[in-house]
Amino acid sequence: MLCLQTSSNPQWVEVAIDHPTEILLDHALCEKKAAAFALAMITRYPRHTRLVRDMIDLAKEELDHLQMVVEELDKRGLTLEHDAGNPYAQALHSHIRQGEPLRMLDSLIVGAFIEARSCERFSLLAEHAREDEMRDMYRSLLASEAGHYRAYTDIAREYFPHEQVRKRIEEFGQFEAAIVKGLGNTPTVHG
Amino acid sequence: MLCLQTSSNPQWVEVAIDHPTEILLDHALCEKKAAAFALAMITRYPRHTRLVRDMIDLAKEELDHLQMVVEELDKRGLTLEHDAGNPYAQALHSHIRQGEPLRMLDSLIVGAFIEARSCERFSLLAEHAREDEMRDMYRSLLASEAGHYRAYTDIAREYFPHEQVRKRIEEFGQFEAAIVKGLGNTPTVHG
Repeated sequence: MLCLQTSSNPQWVEVAIDHPTEILLDHALCEKKAAAFALAMITRYPRHTRLVRDMIDLAKEELDHLQMVVEELDKRGLTLEHDAGNPYAQALHSHIRQGEPLRMLDSLIVGAFIEARSCERFSLLAEHAREDEMRDMYRSLLASEAGHYRAYTDIAREYFPHEQVRKRIEEFGQFEAAIVKGLGNTPTVHG
Repeated sequence: MLCLQTSSNPQWVEVAIDHPTEILLDHALCEKKAAAFALAMITRYPRHTRLVRDMIDLAKEELDHLQMVVEELDKRGLTLEHDAGNPYAQALHSHIRQGEPLRMLDSLIVGAFIEARSCERFSLLAEHAREDEMRDMYRSLLASEAGHYRAYTDIAREYFPHEQVRKRIEEFGQFEAAIVKGLGNTPTVHG
């Protein structure tokens, strides 16, 4: 799917559907962090107008999704919780090179992979979640997550040669597959 | 106006209307930082559902405004610029007490004052800016900034006794007035 070189361990979705509350709580934080990441990209690259425009659109969509998940939690009498961190995203971020413009390229590709993996995981939830509303919600989010993956890779191709982007996506695909193989199938979006 | 205990120095608007580009550039960064501040409040107080809901709404509106200002810059062939910091906001933040729940109360009141002062400054631009589009844009933003002021103070009153909120708004009004009297009338929203 998209740029992903490996599928999630089938055990993950078994754990996830047994813990819908934990998935929703973590999902809400993922949406918030995705919006915050988009704003951080604007802070870092303010003169890249295409990036700025697309990151504003993306942040707004992430906030719409956050709102949707907060409503879903509220129906269950739950609130958001403090963030315990996301080891998957942290491991991906550790592969970002530090000098510019490579940092920008790698940051965009990390954004793309997080969206792509979310899309894969949401498609599993859209198929297997036990509650109708959960399946419907995750189905409704699939197109948007795939759109975010494309937004990140399109921005990368706007500012970097296509071949350089393709090659780095391939490399990150290997990093990401290794990270995913090492995950513990915990009830989080990227667990 | 609202909670403000002092008006801006009349010289500020003279400087501001002579430097519309600088105002727009700074304004865009203010909207971005207001959205980021709202997200930071969600991160810090995830279990306060009323706060979370209102901060999501507010962040979305700030992003709509950022989009509007980016369009306005684009028409002039300009991009966003790197953020040189906002001494006014930094001075206000320095009055936030560190222990909870006082930090939460003070943070909400700082948010309220920044919105209130922005509202006052935008009303001056709505009246005095040289270009029709600038006057129209700032006029269109006034109600929203006043709404954001009310959102912050309403959240404060949801979680703290009304009298405690009133007293702290009064105290912050004194801090804020002293900060505003010391400003150098530079061409920024809070300059």
